[in-house]
Amino acid sequence: MIEAIRVPRNAVSAAILLCLGLAAQAHAAGEQAEQFTPEFRQIHSTMDAKHSPRIVAPDSVARGEWFTVTVSVGTGSQHPSMSEHAIRYIALYKDTAEIARAYLHPVYSAPTVTFTIALDEGGSLRALAEPNHSAAWETSKKIEVRP
Amino acid sequence: MIEAIRVPRNAVSAAILLCLGLAAQAHAAGEQAEQFTPEFRQIHSTMDAKHSPRIVAPDSVARGEWFTVTVSVGTGSQHPSMSEHAIRYIALYKDTAEIARAYLHPVYSAPTVTFTIALDEGGSLRALAEPNHSAAWETSKKIEVRP
Amino acid sequence: MIEAIRVPRNAVSAAILLCLGLAAQAHAAGEQAEQFTPEFRQIHSTMDAKHSPRIVAPDSVARGEWFTVTVSVGTGSQHPSMSEHAIRYIALYKDTAEIARAYLHPVYSAPTVTFTIALDEGGSLRALAEPNHSAAWETSKKIEVRP
Amino acid sequence: MIEAIRVPRNAVSAAILLCLGLAAQAHAAGEQAEQFTPEFRQIHSTMDAKHSPRIVAPDSVARGEWFTVTVSVGTGSQHPSMSEHAIRYIALYKDTAEIARAYLHPVYSAPTVTFTIALDEGGSLRALAEPNHSAAWETSKKIEVRP
Repeated sequence: MIEAIRVPRNAVSAAILLCLGLAAQAHAAGEQAEQFTPEFRQIHSTMDAKHSPRIVAPDSVARGEWFTVTVSVGTGSQHPSMSEHAIRYIALYKDTAEIARAYLHPVYSAPTVTFTIALDEGGSLRALAEPNHSAAWETSKKIEVRP
Repeated sequence: MIEAIRVPRNAVSAAILLCLGLAAQAHAAGEQAEQFTPEFRQIHSTMDAKHSPRIVAPDSVARGEWFTVTVSVGTGSQHPSMSEHAIRYIALYKDTAEIARAYLHPVYSAPTVTFTIALDEGGSLRALAEPNHSAAWETSKKIEVRP
Repeated sequence: MIEAIRVPRNAVSAAILLCLGLAAQAHAAGEQAEQFTPEFRQIHSTMDAKHSPRIVAPDSVARGEWFTVTVSVGTGSQHPSMSEHAIRYIALYKDTAEIARAYLHPVYSAPTVTFTIALDEGGSLRALAEPNHSAAWETSKKIEVRP
Repeated sequence: MIEAIRVPRNAVSAAILLCLGLAAQAHAAGEQAEQFTPEFRQIHSTMDAKHSPRIVAPDSVARGEWFTVTVSVGTGSQHPSMSEHAIRYIALYKDTAEIARAYLHPVYSAPTVTFTIALDEGGSLRALAEPNHSAAWETSKKIEVRP
């Protein structure tokens, strides 16, 4: 039946191998269910001294002007960068539009990154930082854009 | 004054070079402002035959069971993959939690990716696909998770 | 002196804040040094039953033809996806050119991804998979491209 | 036959949809072949005033000490950030181990990023910057790590 829809042979063998792989994984289903924790469920926008991103950016910029935004994680001290406990990425948004995202290797990278950006119009700069043990934490900061 | 706060010398020279770099960029501000288009401003959740992601996933899965989700871009034909017009990334979310994200090189990669995932509880699978010329397009699909 | 080189005021304050941040981090230097393990130092191309990527792809394709490549991690069983022990990303290269890269959230994502790609000329498909506790593991597979 | 190997039903339908998708893509094969240019074939390590990354980092650091590395693209002027011509990402390696990688949205992001990193031992810092129209450009810089 699959041949009847004229699928390239490569695709068929890839698909079958994919199926076999999934069958092999099936027995792990119960185990995997135990790994989920409530922290994974949604973005955290509450304040947290260890996880909330800190945004350093001007309050007002000219339209199209390049300026730097530094995002670091942790308001008191810096979030650790250890192989089993680290920040996976720091992302910067202007309202819902994603502007830049840095993926960080544990141990080598501290959770601090500086991007150079330009904006079109005012709104909220939003920084997301996602650790390995939960969904991302979010902080936002209003910014004015002068015409 | 900067010395007074005992900043490592490396940081000072890096910061000064950063400043010099920004000064050099300043003259481009007017030019950059012309590059912005309204399409960049926010996620597009309206239906678009060329840009809306298509999600292929089961309607119901068991908690912790591995299953595949295929996201492709374009409902009629596939979105092009050309150096000046391509999909930058395809991302998969469960409600607001990001699950996986594939960055695609123009020309080599078609905007189609299959992830293997497991869920904790039901909700919305959301796929985002971001082309180079706008903010991302979003599609969502309800999924039930059986205990 | 800094003013004399006509740096935008935004850049100066960002740079100073950056310096302050670095000073605060300084005391952690000894601690951080203890986090490094020899596994972080270089890409692993030796065979490892748990970490070597497995590439499923055709041996021969036509130039410009779309085909799927599935990369999974682990040759016997699948590498775990737990918050403290997981695969950070799977990347696919054609020789030294990067084609696609999928970042995977621990717990939600299994280390298996299928890309749809096209090639220009024959060579080596290389898959890299990087866990949180080491540098990446690499596997390669020859592929012929018919004109 | 597929049922005989006891593949979950979800996987079968996903695989068939995947096949259908590939069939729909088949007619584009000739077209796609025309998109490849020689610039895509391998990492460029030759000097190029517009594309070679510029690395600003200390010559010597203490083991485990946090320090900043700024990577920008272009040695004379900055590489453009336009929707059809931009830098996709900037990545930083220590020899072959990847340390950090920033994906940049065209127009909003200038190709300049500052990471904060720590090293274990001396070697080469390598910066890769990949534009949309070619494989990545690479620059490296020796760095000493004091025990």
